[in-house]
Order: sequence, then structure tokens, then C-alpha cells
Amino acid sequence: MGAAKEKEGPLGEYFDITENDIKFGEKSFEAGESEMQRLALNTALKKAKMHHKELEAILAGDLLNQCTGSTYGLIEFDLPFIGLFGACSTMAESLALGSLLIDGGHFCKVGAVTSSHFCSAERQFRFPLEYGGQRAPTSQWTVTAAGAVILSEKDSSENKKPKITEVMFGKMIDKGIDDISNMGAAMSPAAADTILKYFRETGADPNSFDIIATGDLGIEGKRITENLLLSEGCDIRAKYNDCGLMIYDCYQQDIHSGGSGCGCSASVLCGYFMQKFELGEYKNILLVCTGALMSPGSVMQGNSIPGIAHLVRIEKN
Amino acid sequence: MGAAKEKEGPLGEYFDITENDIKFGEKSFEAGESEMQRLALNTALKKAKMHHKELEAILAGDLLNQCTGSTYGLIEFDLPFIGLFGACSTMAESLALGSLLIDGGHFCKVGAVTSSHFCSAERQFRFPLEYGGQRAPTSQWTVTAAGAVILSEKDSSENKKPKITEVMFGKMIDKGIDDISNMGAAMSPAAADTILKYFRETGADPNSFDIIATGDLGIEGKRITENLLLSEGCDIRAKYNDCGLMIYDCYQQDIHSGGSGCGCSASVLCGYFMQKFELGEYKNILLVCTGALMSPGSVMQGNSIPGIAHLVRIEKN
Repeated sequence: MGAAKEKEGPLGEYFDITENDIKFGEKSFEAGESEMQRLALNTALKKAKMHHKELEAILAGDLLNQCTGSTYGLIEFDLPFIGLFGACSTMAESLALGSLLIDGGHFCKVGAVTSSHFCSAERQFRFPLEYGGQRAPTSQWTVTAAGAVILSEKDSSENKKPKITEVMFGKMIDKGIDDISNMGAAMSPAAADTILKYFRETGADPNSFDIIATGDLGIEGKRITENLLLSEGCDIRAKYNDCGLMIYDCYQQDIHSGGSGCGCSASVLCGYFMQKFELGEYKNILLVCTGALMSPGSVMQGNSIPGIAHLVRIEKN
Repeated sequence: MGAAKEKEGPLGEYFDITENDIKFGEKSFEAGESEMQRLALNTALKKAKMHHKELEAILAGDLLNQCTGSTYGLIEFDLPFIGLFGACSTMAESLALGSLLIDGGHFCKVGAVTSSHFCSAERQFRFPLEYGGQRAPTSQWTVTAAGAVILSEKDSSENKKPKITEVMFGKMIDKGIDDISNMGAAMSPAAADTILKYFRETGADPNSFDIIATGDLGIEGKRITENLLLSEGCDIRAKYNDCGLMIYDCYQQDIHSGGSGCGCSASVLCGYFMQKFELGEYKNILLVCTGALMSPGSVMQGNSIPGIAHLVRIEKN
């Protein structure tokens, strides 16, 4: 689900829910973000024809301090809760962990949920919204969206659902980028590292995927990732796109370098990619969600910005 | 490992490292907290006679915004990183997840790390340190400490190490407490819920444990937890203590209601409990780490404080 700006974007028609009220009927942007998580999980449950009590746990996180978007949004489901922090990599982190817990036989059904909100992120990480500061050309626009995935041990439905077949947790990599208006550059070395390791370890052919999608690197980060991979002899360009570039029309929508935020890859996956699977147009994708593991305080104290990228491969027979 | 106040407490002699410099040689309290995580994991690796490259992943989190205590403290280990947010429940959350990932056959060796720091927490969650505000009788003192555990598939050492034999992820529970100086009251319903479910599901006898330890409920929270459990016919009092009450002498050290913070249960586990296992005095413990899943912003916006409690049972033959 998403808000008006996401609805106006190229993937607008793929959202299950879009809402013009940026506060989603709540009193604050932060409460609105929680409401998005609640709505996203309820929507996923409805589509899976499941009652929430069939879930055995929820894995979730978001960008807000102490991940309160998830806390207040998901508390009413009254389920065991595994809180995560992976910044904008949270969708892949939760999918990877959730699928391993199911594969290990410890759970049968879990929910994986995340969100981001332009207004709550902007005023927490950058400036008060009223300030109306100019944005740098490399800056990204935090997507106001949430995504929820139900992971299940068995798929007894007639119309078989996509499966997570491989996962890879990434390392934190810090190449010294300290410009909070250039998260793409900060995250791209981690994205390249995870993607390169994946292809080296599996020997998979990049061209065998319908799409290789990074989380939210934007124009700058996507280009750096491509170049870092090419310098190692790994050419994914024919299949590569970035969720941050897919969700908005950067030029028409005045987005600058692209979308970002946990909700970016989450909503592109849950909206667009899942419908592509449903339509039979996708059979095999690689989702590499990227996160910048900084806080405003850590940057103000002079630290550079470590990035991370977690990978999941999703296939449908 | 801990700082001077922790060294002066009743468990001071059980810390592997204590340091008088509250910044741990760094320029800020936050950087000092990261350094604690680095030192804690290095200490655990040294005790396990392992090189850090033998670890396949690290599961970690802390209380700082965007969990930067873990990020900057653990990045140099150059390992796959699974970021968690469970507030002060993080030690049990990371142990529970790590042990399930190993039990499922997905990893052989992982590290579980967490920390808290009085100064970084105080100025982030409450007041500037220079303000010197009065503390309420129910307020707790954030422990300056870190703990790291190496979880391993096989124990080939002659001196068998303790094992995690059962885990339980708790639910978020919010009973309407909105007093940020009474976290014990906010977290105790979640602690009681997890403990009650554990005993009802397993049929275990509370008296069969050497200790049942909650994370950091303090005087108030411990009493509420006992009473909530008694009202359900579950009497754990003979074996029950709280890490927040064990780590400090509340009266002598002017701590008010007890210790708190991710580092509280982490250091009591890694310092005191592990030595008790080593000495053969403990064979079977229940650790229930409790977290308050609020942020200063969420409380200022009028939300009450949800609690959570994750449980691990640790045994040694």
C-alpha cells in the first residue's frame, strides 16, 4: 500500500491500497506509518484467506527511532513479535529470516512487514517539513508505503504461490561516504558485495533472472553498483533495475535520485513483483534490499555511513 | 564487560572487563558503546578460542536510534550482519533467533551481541546529562555494559558448555502505562505473559530451575510480575530474581528501582550466570529478557508503552 505520490508513479496501479490522506486517518505521520503496517498485514492476510491467529510470529521493523512504526502498528495482532532493524534492507532481512525459521521447522506461518513514510523520515533524519530545504541532486525521496508478506510452510492453494529459494545476509560495508544526501553511494558497495558473492557462490547466470532488483539505490547508487560489479567481471545490466527508480518517475515527479525507505522495495515486491508472478510474467527474481545503517546522531558525530544488502531469490514454478 | 558503577556492584567481580573511562577510550558515549560491543565480542571469541572468521553471522542490536551501537561496533568483524531491535530484550531475542538458525542447519556458529550505556541512553531517552534532573523512585538506571555469546552447533570441548534448549518469542503487550520513569510496570505484563505461557505449555516446574531471571524489571516490575503470575496460580518466587536487581545494590549505589538496558541481562548472563555454569553451581536457568518498545517521540505523542519479553532456557549437563 502507498500514498498519493506512489499512486501517481509508474507502479501506482499495482498497489492494493492507496490513500490520499498522508496521515492515514491518524493524528501524526508516525501514527499514520503504524496504520500503514496494520493495513498492509491485514491486506496480505485477506489475500491469503487467513485469519491473523494462524500466524505464529511477525518479523518486522522500520526506520523510526526504536522501530515504533512496527510496534504500534502490529501490537493489536497479539502475536509473538521479532523486531528487526535493517534500515531499508528490512524487507529482505525479514523474508530471509522468516523463510529460514520456516525451513528449519520452527514455524509454519509467519508475517514479514515493513514500512516507511516520507514525512516521519524527513523530520526524523533531515529537516522539519516546514523548513522546505533544497534537496541535493543525489538525494532520494523516502517512499510512503508499507508491504507485508505471509510466509508459509506449505502451499495448498491451487494457484501455487512464489517461493523463497535462496537467501543471503549481507555484511556492513563502509567506504567513507558521509553525505546524508547521497545514500545511494553509501549503500552501493554493500549491494555490489552481496550480489557478487551470490553469483560467485552459486554460479548462477544473471540473465536467468526476470529481474535483479536492488532495494533503493537511486540513479547514483545503481550506477555505482553496476560499475563496481563490472570491475569484478560481473555484468547484470541486462536484468538489473532498482526499486527506487521503478516506483517513481524521477523527472516528472521531482524525485531527484529516486525513492528510498523500507517501504520502497517492500511495496515494489508486494505490489508490482507479486502481480508479475501472478500473471506468469515473472518466474525467477533476485531482490537485494539495501540499507544505510546510520543515525542523524552518528553522522553528526563524524561517522561515515555503513551500508548493508540482504538478498532473497524468489521463484515460481 | 561493564563500567565503574557495574564493577562496584554485587556482580562486579564476574565481569571479564571493567573500565573506568566511561567513554571506553572513544570521543563520545555512543562511540564508547560501540567499542564495548567490539570488546565484548572479541572477549567471547577469545574465551571460545575462535577466530572471528569462524563466525558465519552476527545477530545484534541496541537501544540507540537506528541501532548504531551495534553497527559501528561490529562492522570491523566483516561478517554477515542480522540487525535486531528488541529494546532491552535483545539478548534473549538474539540468542533465540541464533539458536533456531543453528538448530535449523542454516548456520554452524553465530555471535549474539548487545549493549547499553547510561550516558548515551540518558541523553537520548530522557534529559541532557548536564541537566541533573531528579529521578523518580520507580526509575531505573541504564546499565553501562555489553555482552556477547558465541552460539555453536557442536561443542567439541572437553568442558561441555551450556546449551540453549528452549526458546519462546513474546508478544507485545500494552497495559496503558505511559510513565517513562516506570518501565518496570510497562514491561511486567509482557514478562508475566511469556513466563505463564512457558510454564503452561511445557508443564515445567518453576522449582526445577536454578534461577528464573527477568531482564530488567527492577523493584516495581518484579513485584508486579510476581503478583500477575500469582493471580494465575503460577508461583515462581522461590527461584525468581531480576537482572536489574542483581547487578546493582539499589540502596547503596543510589540506583532507585534497579538496572535496565540491553546490557543489563546481557552482562548478568555473560558474566555471572556463565561463571555459575562453569563452576557447576547452575545447571538449568530461564532467562526472560524484557524490553519497552517505545521511543521518546512515541511517548510525547501520547502513546503508552508496549512491553515485550523473550525467553531462553539454558542448560548444562
